[in-house]
Amino acid sequence: MASLFLCRQLTPALQHNTRSLLSFHRYIHQNVYEYDGPVMKTEVPGPRSRELIRQLNTMQNADAVNFFCDYEESRGNYLVDVDGNRMLDLYSQISSIPIGYNHPALVKVLQKPQNLSAFINRPALGILPPDDFNVNLKESLLSISPKGLQQVMTMSCGSCSNENAFKLIFMWFRKKERGLNMVTQEELDSCMINKRSALDGSIKLVAKVTRLASCKQEAITPVLTRRASNDTSFPDAGLTGSKAARYMVGCLATTHSKAIHKLDIPSFDWPIAPFPKLKYPLEQFVKENKDEEARCLEEVEDLIVKCREKNKIVAGIVIEPIQSEGGDNHASDDFFRKLRAIAIKHGCAFLVDEVQTGGGATGKFWAHEHWGMDNPAEVVTFSKKMMTGGFFHKDELRPDAPYRIFNTWLGDPSKNILLTEVLNVIKQEDLLNNAVHAGKILMDGLLDFQVRYPHLVSRVRGRGTFCSFDTPDDVTRTNLISQTRNKDQK
Amino acid sequence: MASLFLCRQLTPALQHNTRSLLSFHRYIHQNVYEYDGPVMKTEVPGPRSRELIRQLNTMQNADAVNFFCDYEESRGNYLVDVDGNRMLDLYSQISSIPIGYNHPALVKVLQKPQNLSAFINRPALGILPPDDFNVNLKESLLSISPKGLQQVMTMSCGSCSNENAFKLIFMWFRKKERGLNMVTQEELDSCMINKRSALDGSIKLVAKVTRLASCKQEAITPVLTRRASNDTSFPDAGLTGSKAARYMVGCLATTHSKAIHKLDIPSFDWPIAPFPKLKYPLEQFVKENKDEEARCLEEVEDLIVKCREKNKIVAGIVIEPIQSEGGDNHASDDFFRKLRAIAIKHGCAFLVDEVQTGGGATGKFWAHEHWGMDNPAEVVTFSKKMMTGGFFHKDELRPDAPYRIFNTWLGDPSKNILLTEVLNVIKQEDLLNNAVHAGKILMDGLLDFQVRYPHLVSRVRGRGTFCSFDTPDDVTRTNLISQTRNKDQK
Repeated sequence: MASLFLCRQLTPALQHNTRSLLSFHRYIHQNVYEYDGPVMKTEVPGPRSRELIRQLNTMQNADAVNFFCDYEESRGNYLVDVDGNRMLDLYSQISSIPIGYNHPALVKVLQKPQNLSAFINRPALGILPPDDFNVNLKESLLSISPKGLQQVMTMSCGSCSNENAFKLIFMWFRKKERGLNMVTQEELDSCMINKRSALDGSIKLVAKVTRLASCKQEAITPVLTRRASNDTSFPDAGLTGSKAARYMVGCLATTHSKAIHKLDIPSFDWPIAPFPKLKYPLEQFVKENKDEEARCLEEVEDLIVKCREKNKIVAGIVIEPIQSEGGDNHASDDFFRKLRAIAIKHGCAFLVDEVQTGGGATGKFWAHEHWGMDNPAEVVTFSKKMMTGGFFHKDELRPDAPYRIFNTWLGDPSKNILLTEVLNVIKQEDLLNNAVHAGKILMDGLLDFQVRYPHLVSRVRGRGTFCSFDTPDDVTRTNLISQTRNKDQK
Repeated sequence: MASLFLCRQLTPALQHNTRSLLSFHRYIHQNVYEYDGPVMKTEVPGPRSRELIRQLNTMQNADAVNFFCDYEESRGNYLVDVDGNRMLDLYSQISSIPIGYNHPALVKVLQKPQNLSAFINRPALGILPPDDFNVNLKESLLSISPKGLQQVMTMSCGSCSNENAFKLIFMWFRKKERGLNMVTQEELDSCMINKRSALDGSIKLVAKVTRLASCKQEAITPVLTRRASNDTSFPDAGLTGSKAARYMVGCLATTHSKAIHKLDIPSFDWPIAPFPKLKYPLEQFVKENKDEEARCLEEVEDLIVKCREKNKIVAGIVIEPIQSEGGDNHASDDFFRKLRAIAIKHGCAFLVDEVQTGGGATGKFWAHEHWGMDNPAEVVTFSKKMMTGGFFHKDELRPDAPYRIFNTWLGDPSKNILLTEVLNVIKQEDLLNNAVHAGKILMDGLLDFQVRYPHLVSRVRGRGTFCSFDTPDDVTRTNLISQTRNKDQK
């Protein structure tokens, strides 16, 4: 209960800080219908949410449901729940709502008669695309394609995007190895029965640069606001001994954040390299953090070399510019530039997973743009805020035959139409700069808390609005969220 | 060129047969705006399609694109391409359009103001579902849940559905093995680094009952019509030696139909059991087919036992009621009942993959209903015609903790709303019986062809409108499709 007491200390400060953030939000959205502020009527989840959770739980495991939402009543940054509670939403559906709820521009997209067909006639995009598909691709995805990556594939979700990007990397890598040699019948036959070809002596690997969760600290989303909604209250799933938790949002593909996602499921024996564990505040630990990043880079390279000695060759390196599900872990731009150089040196494809970070929250459209590189990656995957999943890639990774990257839907053109409008709004409302400015207010407030409540708030870090801090443990975190959210019910 | 000549013989017959089928279609849809018949203006792909394919090919490999479509102009069973060609569509976007193009009922769904929010505010369903989610689940998916399977999860696509269903099976199987023992810390730690636990001595396997493609014959979708569109013209991908082709539609998860899908991609070493290769016409080969099915069943059981001797335990059996991507392979209801019994006997979960067969084309909503069993499966997966991916499963497979089956979107509630309307239409327009009747006309026509053109048409088979036949080789097939489609241009 000590943590409960600690939380009470922090709550008034959270309320104060929220006001500055709110006024900024209202300025930006002055021409858009949005609520004045949060209104709380019940504790959350309220009685109606609890009843709906009970009902849903008869059809599927609903233990992860925070509350049920009234999306029709939600507006902009405010999420309304079924008990009439209106909350400032800093979590935006696991970071997947790009420009707020019921944005007028998206309402208009739905009301345009010429868009109707795209929403009810979902095509098999790979074989029978709609007449405006090329134009939509150019106006949406290709208008924000990362440097040097001019090829694009759409997919239905983030996991599909990463999985198919892995396939692309493996195909590219084997093609390089094969050189001018043709694919042999033996290779074609062996793959059909899930065997490696005798010719393909090496096992190809994708190394993920990651850091396993530690047990002592808890990252927290910036629940800075008086009525923070969509909190990070992912329970520890009731498994004995499981305190491995360092999380903010979900990206399922090749996750290494929580055992509950991985237990009992067969897995490829792909190597995992360490991700730097930086000390904060950064300016106090310059030397230590530099050494930590150097150590991690050395381990990555060492791992690639050691794999090769065992005739296991690393085909690609997978990295998130900010580890999200993994606990909001950052590294310096210099770290990523050097990691990229290692990939080039060893002939590994560099896959930058921007499923979580893409879309502008860091203040640039793609988080990897902060690295300032002309050749940042071979593949960049996306989903969430982009409305559709998919990936960009270099020309040289282009599949050499149809159907190698294929499924029935290959995304959904109606999502491309919505994305086109989202990108217009981001431009018109200058939302990238907004993320920089709002992020600064957020960060200043968090740093202030850290000074005033060092026993509650530590390791404040962030880029744009992609901010977080640690609490001493998960009980403190959960209490902090529920107390700041439930206070002052009317 | 012999095959070209052969095709010319068949074309007039195809035209005649189409007329009966068309008049039936028009009777069924008499209250729905639909075109009178096909109209061909250019060869397919026409000049505008060719130009758009060329453009798309600069952004992604577009070699699989058949032609570009004008979905706004398409109606019911008629697909219109960008060159103004109007074709009777028996392929329906890789079998994923359930009630035809621009069905008036779906247009109304989009026009209802109360549905607007669902199309622009896509939630993270697992944590923040919309207020009407339970009602929509009951009105859509749970209104057609297979016998004994009252739990349901939604997913974004068919591959995600099968993959997550595999995960469900592995978790259920390990839980059974674990019994009353708790999950150990060692298990939790080892899974985080992609290792098997030392305690988990056995490798769990999912066996797929499948038949590898043979090289000599080509299955063909029922391109019975004068203007068959969306043909099966999947090229052989230009790989040397690849003649492995026996396909109709795509279901990517655990595919075994074509090497091009699998080459170069790491795979789990899961065993593959033979699927019966029946001889047609069935009434002439009763004894042979019975023996063939008995042989396959024996091999499945033998495989499970042999795996166990190697301490590799089969956790589940995956089966399609009609192998679709695999070449439209059927087996008797008796075969499936006996296969189901083997799964029960050996404690394997039985996963019926209805991604392709679900939705009514076989004359029953689920193809496995033809088996007439009270306990047909542990898990049934779906996608395509269901508008959303997902799976039904038994209560006993329910995950014991949240986040074990989880991703950001977990489907898309806007698709559930569309599905509810699709199910209403299927009921109101009696489309299951329609599939039975239309299927009989289709099958009678195919059988007639088989008698008249045995050198062109063989192994006629089908259930409902899920019909197919073989041609002697892929050149014949491709010529047959293009000739029937392009004839009589105006």
